[in-house]
Amino acid sequence: MAQTERQRAGLVRTLRPRPADSPLLDLAGNDYLGLARHPEVTHGAAEAAHRWGAGATGSRLVTGSTELHALLEAELAAFCGFEAALVLSSGYAANLAAVTALTDPGTLVVSDAGNHASLIDGCRLSRGRVAVAPHADPEAVRAALTGHDGRALAVTDSVFSVDGDAAPLPELAAACRSRGAALLVDDAHGLGILGAGGRGALSAAGLAGDADVVATVTLSKSLGSQGGAVLGPARVIEHLVNTARSFIFDTGLAPAAVGGALAALRLLVREPDRAARTGRIARELHGRLTAAGLTTVRPDAAVISVRAPSPEAAVRWAADCRAAGLAVGCFRPPSVPDGISRLRLTARADLTQEQLDRAVATILATAPTG
Amino acid sequence: MAQTERQRAGLVRTLRPRPADSPLLDLAGNDYLGLARHPEVTHGAAEAAHRWGAGATGSRLVTGSTELHALLEAELAAFCGFEAALVLSSGYAANLAAVTALTDPGTLVVSDAGNHASLIDGCRLSRGRVAVAPHADPEAVRAALTGHDGRALAVTDSVFSVDGDAAPLPELAAACRSRGAALLVDDAHGLGILGAGGRGALSAAGLAGDADVVATVTLSKSLGSQGGAVLGPARVIEHLVNTARSFIFDTGLAPAAVGGALAALRLLVREPDRAARTGRIARELHGRLTAAGLTTVRPDAAVISVRAPSPEAAVRWAADCRAAGLAVGCFRPPSVPDGISRLRLTARADLTQEQLDRAVATILATAPTG
Repeated sequence: MAQTERQRAGLVRTLRPRPADSPLLDLAGNDYLGLARHPEVTHGAAEAAHRWGAGATGSRLVTGSTELHALLEAELAAFCGFEAALVLSSGYAANLAAVTALTDPGTLVVSDAGNHASLIDGCRLSRGRVAVAPHADPEAVRAALTGHDGRALAVTDSVFSVDGDAAPLPELAAACRSRGAALLVDDAHGLGILGAGGRGALSAAGLAGDADVVATVTLSKSLGSQGGAVLGPARVIEHLVNTARSFIFDTGLAPAAVGGALAALRLLVREPDRAARTGRIARELHGRLTAAGLTTVRPDAAVISVRAPSPEAAVRWAADCRAAGLAVGCFRPPSVPDGISRLRLTARADLTQEQLDRAVATILATAPTG
Repeated sequence: MAQTERQRAGLVRTLRPRPADSPLLDLAGNDYLGLARHPEVTHGAAEAAHRWGAGATGSRLVTGSTELHALLEAELAAFCGFEAALVLSSGYAANLAAVTALTDPGTLVVSDAGNHASLIDGCRLSRGRVAVAPHADPEAVRAALTGHDGRALAVTDSVFSVDGDAAPLPELAAACRSRGAALLVDDAHGLGILGAGGRGALSAAGLAGDADVVATVTLSKSLGSQGGAVLGPARVIEHLVNTARSFIFDTGLAPAAVGGALAALRLLVREPDRAARTGRIARELHGRLTAAGLTTVRPDAAVISVRAPSPEAAVRWAADCRAAGLAVGCFRPPSVPDGISRLRLTARADLTQEQLDRAVATILATAPTG
């Protein structure tokens, strides 16, 4: 779409840099556990910069692997219940790496229609044949896999980023097993919230560590830092090291991001209730907004999606919230696969009851009428 | 290639995490100006983590844009001579963003055969038609563009990452102008080394700020941090903000990486001789190795490529250097487009004469015989 058409449609995006001490109440970010500014986490980041340098100085295959990377990979794999992990510079890069390294020209990739853009771009970069399955439909995945001769892979988000609904992982895993296919799950929005102590959606579903299951996670959401990781059997991680272009041809994640994520992970291990608290706050937000008559999706993790009647109404609603001191996400075409505009709210473990009350009151007071 | 074939061919890569205080002399990393561990740069990174948090908490379009990002973008654009800049989480992401956003289904993309993997992946993700031009051949680019009706884009590295040779930018720009095509240049290995005070290859060629020229750079090489940026006219940057998937669907670069890069940039502005010093050291290394009979490529920036007779010999040579206390890069198939194995050495502004002497002596003492 050209810029002028986009302007007419009210869809032009502009960056709005925030100050260090924003007065806004933030229900828009993905810092689900409230750790991005936790003193232990920022200290972990700062110390790593002092000790290891501001950058990794090269590809992980050349000079960019530090013992700090290896430590995070070991602790993250152990926490989530996988044999091995590989840290990349973003969740986007982790998804490109996982999808492309798990496919060859004969591979059938069955991808959920609601998958995150980074999984979709991974599919586009892969050499396999891609079939898009209807959203959260294990029988459709099973049907798509039936009759394929050769390697096959089903790909899904664990928690979908826009609506916050969860994928039916046990049923998807059963469909994959019955057809000899591998399963790749992007747990970006599940890690830190789902599973015992926030061990993630794969752990919650009893699938962590399975021979044919690979997960990706981000270090930039619950872990309050930056980066992504692939979790899986050691042989898969070795294969990624040797073949994944978004890993090989990228500078290693900066030590500060590694140190921040490691500090957050250790904090979560020590204070496991943070995970459950985020889920409780999300359900409270959903319950109160639904009771007041808004159309919302029941949150399976920390994301609450509230439907808006049009892109223009969504933009106005978010702007009115902001004017009243509340930051909310505003998702509209083309960032949403189904073309439906909505506010996207996120729960955070450190929200107070007063902040929750204020957020609900603001959203209701600014809601589009009619 | 399967893992077993790779093992037989001596091509298996394993990660080798380094300690914080490695005793190795590093001629393998891309920290060309020696700034990754400069106290001002690590302080800039650490301070940013304390002040802004360990992570950006969301997409740059939602909560992930801070005033620190905006400051870096303004100072980087001004330094390099472009109207505007956009910071992404890696150079890989910046190249995906630039190539995909500058192409539509009718676009012809003419890509140099020696381009970096991230430009190639950008071409694969783009909706345009891609033609690969012979390496560093402006007449071939002109010929490929001739007769195309519609939008066209030529894409090249400024300094090629493996051999360290420079693209003929003035001639490429003339070819593009004569055919109404835009020019995209990845200046990852030119920024900080080429041009007055390290303003980059585009500035050196008098092309910075041209209406039809876009550049990408990394923050992880000369600037010692992590991340990438796209530089160009403000309208192009606005277009990227609205369309580039590797920008929109990624968490913003962590504040520590932004703060580190900003500190490095300001240091370079204050101490412009660092840029020229790196080039002088590269040319000295090349001169001495060539005089001793090795086959090397004349360096146009900081990278010196030394030919090895086989993948196995290159691996052994690099291992022997390492055993003698010197880290060098070892590039071999499939990371090299031409299948030629080589050592890759990098010059660094802070190498002492004693270190240079030691590096040369070690490389010569361990060189394959015959």
